[in-house]
Amino acid sequence: MLSQVYRCGFQPFNQHLLPWVKCTTVFRSHCIQPSVIRHVRSWSNIPFITVPLSRTHGKSFAHRSELKHAKRIVVKLGSAVVTRGDECGLALGRLASIVEQVSVLQNQGREMMLVTSGAVAFGKQRLRHEILLSQSVRQALHSGQNQLKEMAIPVLEARACAAAGQSGLMALYEAMFTQYSICAAQILVTNLDFHDEQKRRNLNGTLHELLRMNIVPIVNTNDAVVPPAEPNSDLQGVNVGLFDSPPGSDDAKLIDIFYPGDQQSVTFGTKSRVGMGGMEAKVKAALWALQGGTSVVIANGTHPKVSGHVITDIVEGKKVGTFFSEVKPAGPTVEQQGEMARSGGRMLATLEPEQRAEIIHHLADLLTDQRDEILLANKKDLEEAEGRLAAPLLKRLSLSTSKLNSLAIGLRQIAASSQDSVGRVLRRTRIAKNLELEQVTVPIGVLLVIFESRPDCLPQVAALAIASGNGLLLKGGKEAAHSNRILHLLTQEALSIHGVKEAVQLVNTREEVEDLCRLDKMIDLIIPRGSSQLVRDIQKAAKGIPVMGHSEGICHMYVDSEASVDKVTRLVRDSKCEYPAACNALETLLIHRDLLRTPLFDQIIDMLRVEQVKIHAGPKFASYLTFSPSEVKSLRTEYGDLELCIEVVDNVQDAIDHIHKYGSSHTDVIVTEDENTAEFFLQHVDSACVFWNASTRFSDGYRFGLGAEVGISTSRIHARGPVGLEGLLTTKWLLRGKDHVVSDFSEHGSLKYLHENLPIPQRNTN
Amino acid sequence: MLSQVYRCGFQPFNQHLLPWVKCTTVFRSHCIQPSVIRHVRSWSNIPFITVPLSRTHGKSFAHRSELKHAKRIVVKLGSAVVTRGDECGLALGRLASIVEQVSVLQNQGREMMLVTSGAVAFGKQRLRHEILLSQSVRQALHSGQNQLKEMAIPVLEARACAAAGQSGLMALYEAMFTQYSICAAQILVTNLDFHDEQKRRNLNGTLHELLRMNIVPIVNTNDAVVPPAEPNSDLQGVNVGLFDSPPGSDDAKLIDIFYPGDQQSVTFGTKSRVGMGGMEAKVKAALWALQGGTSVVIANGTHPKVSGHVITDIVEGKKVGTFFSEVKPAGPTVEQQGEMARSGGRMLATLEPEQRAEIIHHLADLLTDQRDEILLANKKDLEEAEGRLAAPLLKRLSLSTSKLNSLAIGLRQIAASSQDSVGRVLRRTRIAKNLELEQVTVPIGVLLVIFESRPDCLPQVAALAIASGNGLLLKGGKEAAHSNRILHLLTQEALSIHGVKEAVQLVNTREEVEDLCRLDKMIDLIIPRGSSQLVRDIQKAAKGIPVMGHSEGICHMYVDSEASVDKVTRLVRDSKCEYPAACNALETLLIHRDLLRTPLFDQIIDMLRVEQVKIHAGPKFASYLTFSPSEVKSLRTEYGDLELCIEVVDNVQDAIDHIHKYGSSHTDVIVTEDENTAEFFLQHVDSACVFWNASTRFSDGYRFGLGAEVGISTSRIHARGPVGLEGLLTTKWLLRGKDHVVSDFSEHGSLKYLHENLPIPQRNTN
Repeated sequence: MLSQVYRCGFQPFNQHLLPWVKCTTVFRSHCIQPSVIRHVRSWSNIPFITVPLSRTHGKSFAHRSELKHAKRIVVKLGSAVVTRGDECGLALGRLASIVEQVSVLQNQGREMMLVTSGAVAFGKQRLRHEILLSQSVRQALHSGQNQLKEMAIPVLEARACAAAGQSGLMALYEAMFTQYSICAAQILVTNLDFHDEQKRRNLNGTLHELLRMNIVPIVNTNDAVVPPAEPNSDLQGVNVGLFDSPPGSDDAKLIDIFYPGDQQSVTFGTKSRVGMGGMEAKVKAALWALQGGTSVVIANGTHPKVSGHVITDIVEGKKVGTFFSEVKPAGPTVEQQGEMARSGGRMLATLEPEQRAEIIHHLADLLTDQRDEILLANKKDLEEAEGRLAAPLLKRLSLSTSKLNSLAIGLRQIAASSQDSVGRVLRRTRIAKNLELEQVTVPIGVLLVIFESRPDCLPQVAALAIASGNGLLLKGGKEAAHSNRILHLLTQEALSIHGVKEAVQLVNTREEVEDLCRLDKMIDLIIPRGSSQLVRDIQKAAKGIPVMGHSEGICHMYVDSEASVDKVTRLVRDSKCEYPAACNALETLLIHRDLLRTPLFDQIIDMLRVEQVKIHAGPKFASYLTFSPSEVKSLRTEYGDLELCIEVVDNVQDAIDHIHKYGSSHTDVIVTEDENTAEFFLQHVDSACVFWNASTRFSDGYRFGLGAEVGISTSRIHARGPVGLEGLLTTKWLLRGKDHVVSDFSEHGSLKYLHENLPIPQRNTN
Repeated sequence: MLSQVYRCGFQPFNQHLLPWVKCTTVFRSHCIQPSVIRHVRSWSNIPFITVPLSRTHGKSFAHRSELKHAKRIVVKLGSAVVTRGDECGLALGRLASIVEQVSVLQNQGREMMLVTSGAVAFGKQRLRHEILLSQSVRQALHSGQNQLKEMAIPVLEARACAAAGQSGLMALYEAMFTQYSICAAQILVTNLDFHDEQKRRNLNGTLHELLRMNIVPIVNTNDAVVPPAEPNSDLQGVNVGLFDSPPGSDDAKLIDIFYPGDQQSVTFGTKSRVGMGGMEAKVKAALWALQGGTSVVIANGTHPKVSGHVITDIVEGKKVGTFFSEVKPAGPTVEQQGEMARSGGRMLATLEPEQRAEIIHHLADLLTDQRDEILLANKKDLEEAEGRLAAPLLKRLSLSTSKLNSLAIGLRQIAASSQDSVGRVLRRTRIAKNLELEQVTVPIGVLLVIFESRPDCLPQVAALAIASGNGLLLKGGKEAAHSNRILHLLTQEALSIHGVKEAVQLVNTREEVEDLCRLDKMIDLIIPRGSSQLVRDIQKAAKGIPVMGHSEGICHMYVDSEASVDKVTRLVRDSKCEYPAACNALETLLIHRDLLRTPLFDQIIDMLRVEQVKIHAGPKFASYLTFSPSEVKSLRTEYGDLELCIEVVDNVQDAIDHIHKYGSSHTDVIVTEDENTAEFFLQHVDSACVFWNASTRFSDGYRFGLGAEVGISTSRIHARGPVGLEGLLTTKWLLRGKDHVVSDFSEHGSLKYLHENLPIPQRNTN
C-alpha cells in the first residue's frame, strides 16, 4: 500500500491549477557527479497502486524550502503548455521562457531533463498549412491564419502529424538552447522501450551519459511509430510511462507543467483520453514518483503572471502549484492553521468578555511565572544570532525580566480594555412592531500579524487578538524562533482555560511572508508590526487582503507668522529629536516667509544645530539664503533620523497645499497663536491627525487614550490614525422578528416602516 | 515649431516605464493595399526639433481606442528587451512572446514591421564563449555560464560582436516566425542609407514590396560596417535614424519596447550614449513620428506581468505605457479629472452641511425643471440602443417623468440625511490640561462609482457623494452617454451654487473600467452599482483600491424543528419569490431532518410548486427521498432566479456549519419559536446580517432605516451589510494644545495623561 501523500498547495486539488517536482538526493557539489541510475519499472503491467516499495530509494523532501537543493530536475511539459490556447500552433513565448528557466537552472550546475509533448500539435498545424497551400497558394497567402483554421481540413492522422512536427520542434529547442550555450539531445521512446529490460538499460545508459556531459536530454514519445490512438490506449500510456520513468528517477526532480483546462488536451479527437491525460494520470505518476522517494510539484504552466518564472520559483521554494511529499510535514499546513484560527476565533468570540479577559490575565501571569524558561529560550536565539545580527537588532531580540514584567502590565491593560469590545451594541432600531434591528460589534475574523525580531510582540499581539475575539496567525522572524515558540506555547496554555487553544497559531518560520499574503480566502486583515519597509513590502505583497499599517510618515509642522517664539523651539525639538526613527517624528518644517531672518528663526536653527540635526533646504528656502544647506533631493522624504527638511511658505494656504502635495496624510501640525488660522488649518488639512500647538509625537494610540494600541493607519477606510482595539472589530446586524416579510411593507401592504431609534443598553464596564 | 504633444499615460514620464506606437491611416480592408510610401528625412543633419511640417501627413490618433484600427504597426525593440537582465544572452522568453504577438497581429491582416537590436549583445556572448572555449574546453564545459561571466574576458569589439551575432539572431527570428507560417525578411541599414536619396528610395521600395507580400521585415543596424562607437555618435544615430524612418511612416504604426533601467542599454561601454539611447532619443523620435501624423506608445517591454501581451494590449487600446498624440484630447484626461475631483471634494467637505444639502436640493429641482431636456437626451440613447439592447435593458435605460420625480424625492431624502454626516464629533478626550483630542467624521476622499445602463444612478450617486463631501468620478455605460451627459451637467450646475462645480466628474465613456481600477493614487474607494457580475469584475480588476460591494449573496434560511407551520411558508415565499434576482433573495433552504415527511414540509414544497420554483436537492436531502429532484451541482450557488436548493441538517449547529462552509456571509435566517435556539443562531452565525423569523429581503439600507443607501457590503472591514452614508466617511483626529510636547509626559516629566472622556456636543439636526 502507498503511504499517505501530503499535499501542501494553495489551490484545492480539484481546481486543476497545479505540476510536479521530484527531488531526493542532494548533491551539493557544483560539479557534476555521476549519479547512480537504477532500473525503472514500467507501470503498465502492474497495477499502478501496487508498485512495490522494494526499489532502493531515498526520501522525498518534506518541505518546499528543500527543493532548492535538488540536483536533478525533470521538467515535464503537457501539450497544452506547449500549444497556444487558440490552437494556432506552438505557444512560443511559454516554450522559450521554459527553455530560459531550464537553462538558468542547468547553468547553476543542476542536471536538467525535459519531457516534452507538442510534436503532434506542431505537426498538425504544419500539415494543415501544407494541405491548404497545395489547394490554393494565393488564397492561403492572403487569408491569414484565422481563416486557415476555419476552412474544412481533412482529419489529420496523429502519427503523420507527429512525424511532421518532431523535426521542427527539435530544431526549435536546439536553436533556443544554443542561445544559452547549452547542448540538447533528443530521446524518442515508446511504451515498449520500458517493457524490455535491455532496452531500458540502454536508455538509462544514454541518459546517464548525456547528463554527465552537461547535455540536456529532451524526451518525447515516438508518436510516429506507436499504434493508432484509442481511448485510454498506448499513446497515453507511453506518455505516462515516459513521465514516470526518467532514468535515475530515484534522485531525479520532476516538474510537470500542464494546462488547467481539459479541452486543450484534446489534440486529435479521442476525447475519452482526456480524463487520463488530465489530473488522474498526473496524480498517479506523482504517487509513483513519490514511492521512489522523489518530491513532485504540479503547477499551472500557462498563467501569464507566473509562466515566465514558474519553474525557477518552484525550485526557489515559492508556493506555486501543489507540492507532493511522502514525508509527513512536522506540523499542520498553514491552510490547516488558518482553519484552526478561524474556528478557534469563532469560539473565542462567543465567550463572555470576562472570559477573554481571564485568558489575557492568565497569559500575563505565565509571562512572569515561566520567566526562566522564556529567558532560556531567548538566550538560545541570542546565541545563534551572535555575530550574525547587528547590535541594535540583538537588543531588540533580547528579553529580560524587566521587559517581561512590563509586558505583563501591558497585557493587563489590554485585558481591561477588552471588556467593552466584542458584542457592544452600536445602534438599535425598531423597524416595525416586534421587528427590532441591532448593530453589534464582532471580531473581523482571522488576522495575520507579521513581526520582525522582537519576540515581545507575540504576547502583545496575541492579547489584542484575544481581547477582540479574533483568530490569529502569527508570523515571527527566524531569529526569534526559540523565544516565539515558548511564548506561543504559553499563549495556547492560557487559551486552554476556556477551551480555545487553537485560536492563536504560530506559523512555521519556513513559510514565506509573500505566500501568506496571498491567502485571501483565509485571512481577513494583515497587520505588519515593524519597520516601515516591512509595512511597504507587505502592502505590496498582499493580494486582495487589506493591510493595516502606515508605510510612510512624512509629518509636517507649519510655523505660522503668529507663532509664539517660546513654543516653536520646544515643539520642533520634541517632534524631531525625541525619537527620530518613529513614524510620527517630524520630517519637514514649513516656515512662514515673514519669519526668515527673525530671532525666532535663528533660535530654531540654533536648537537644531545643538541637537545635531542635519538640515536639508527646500528649493524656496534655498533661494532665500546666501549660503544654504544642501538642497533636498525630494520634498517627499521620510528621513527617520536626525535630518530635517526646511521649506518656506507664503501663508497657511500655501502650507496646506504643500502638505497635500508632499505629505503622507499621517500627522501635520500648525504652530500659531491665531485661533482662526489654526481652525482653518485643522479643518482643511486632509490628514489622519491634524494638531495645533502640539508635538507630532502625540500621534499614538496610548497617548490618545485608546487603551491597547493596534497600530497607526494611514489608510482611509476602516481605521485611520492611531488604532485601538476597535480597529480589530467589525459589526454585524441582528434582526429579530415574528414572521415579518417585506411584501407586507409594499405600497399596498398592511405595514409601515417605523424606523424608531431605540436606546442602547449600557454595559457596565468595571 | 512642434505643436504641443499630449501624453496620456499612467506613469509619470520620468519613471521610465514606457515605449511607442505610430498610427495614422486606417485601411479597414483585410487585403493588403499598396500604401503610399513617402520619402523620409534623415534627422541627423537637421536639428531634430525643426523638421518642417511640410511632409504630407495624416493625423495621429487622439485616443488609444483608435489604435485597434492601425493597419501598419512598427515594433521597435530596445536592446534591453532583447537581452536578459543578468546579461546571460538573449531574453528568449520575451523575444518569443514578441514574435508571438507580432504574428497574431500580422495574421489579423495588419502589416507588421520589426526594428530590432540585440545582434551586438548576442554576438558578444557568443564570442566570449568562443574565446573561453579556445582557452580551455573542459574548464568551460564544467563551469557553467556564471563562471564564464566572471572570468577575465578581453574587451570585445562591437563590430565583431555584431557580425557574429547577426546571423544567429536572424536564424532565431526565422525559426520562430516559421512557427506561425510567417515569412520574415532581413533589412540591414546604416545611417548613410538615409542620407542618400536614391538609397532611401530603394529601401522604401524593398520594404513596400515585402509588406505587400505579407512578409514581416526585420530591420537592424548593420553594426558590422558602421564606424566605431563614440559618445553620441553615428551608431546611436543610425539607431534613431532607423527608428524614425520606417518607409511609409506616414501611415505606419510604431511600437517601441525598451528596458526601464538605463544600465542595460550599455552594450559595449560607451556610457555617454546611454542618455541618448534612453528616454531622450525615444522622445525625440516620438515627436518626429507625431509630426508625420503617427501615434506613438512607449511601454515597458520587460515587466513580467505584461511582457507576454504588451503589444496586443496596446493595440487593443489598453492603458499600457505612455500614449503620445498630436491631437488634443477633447476633454481633460482621467488623471486631471481625478485631481479636480480631489480638490473639488476637499472644498465640498469644508462647506457647511446646510450648503451641501442646498446643492442636493437644487439638483432635485433641476431634475424636474429640466425634465424635457433630460428626456430628449434619453430618447437619443434609446433610439441608438434600439435593436442592440434586449428589452429589459432598454427598460433600465429609459427615463420618464415619474422616474425623475421619484428620483427628486430620493435626492431630498439624501439631503436630509446629509445634515449629520461630515464633521460629526465621535469622541472627545482630555489628554491633559489644555490638550483636547477630537475624532470627527470626514469624507473618504475620491470615490469612483461605476454603473451600468441606468442613468438614474448618476444623480443618486452624485447626491450621496455631495452629502458625504467626497470627490466623485462617475463612469457610466456607453449606452446611456447622452442621458449621463445632461445629468452630469445639471449636477455641476447645482454644485456651482457653492463654487464646487468640479467635485463631480463624468469620466469619458472611452476609458476602460479596468484601467480606472488601477488608479490607486487617485481613487480611495470604488463602488460598483449594478449586477453582481459587475461587482465581481471590478473586485478582480481593482489593484490596491478597496471596493465596496457584495459579489455574492448566497442567503440561507434554516427551518428549525420548532418552527411555526404558519410562518415558514410565508417567510420562504417572501425570501425566495418576491424578487429572486436580488442579492438578498434566498438561495438555500436548510430543513431540520425531523421536519421531513411532516405536513409543514409538504406545505413548503406545495408553495414552491405553485410559485414555480425549481428545486435542487442537496446530497443529504436527495438521500432521504425515493424520487428526488435533480441533485445540486454545488451547494454554493447563487441562482438569482426562481430556483432553490434544499438540504437537510441534523440540528442548529449543523445548519451553522453548513452556512459557514457554503455561505457568502451575506444574510442568513433562522425560523424557530425556540428563543434559545434563535439566540444561539444569532450569536454564532458569522454573517453580515443574521435574522430570526424575518425574511432575508429585509437586508437593505432603506429597510434598515439607514436613510440613503450606498450599497450592501460583504467585506469585513470598514462597512458590513447594508451601508448608509456612513460608509462614505472616515475620521480624522484633531488635537488642540498650547505647547504640549511628549517629553513632558515621560517617566520623570512634569505632566500625567488624564484621558478623560468629554461630552460630545449634539448637533441639532432639523
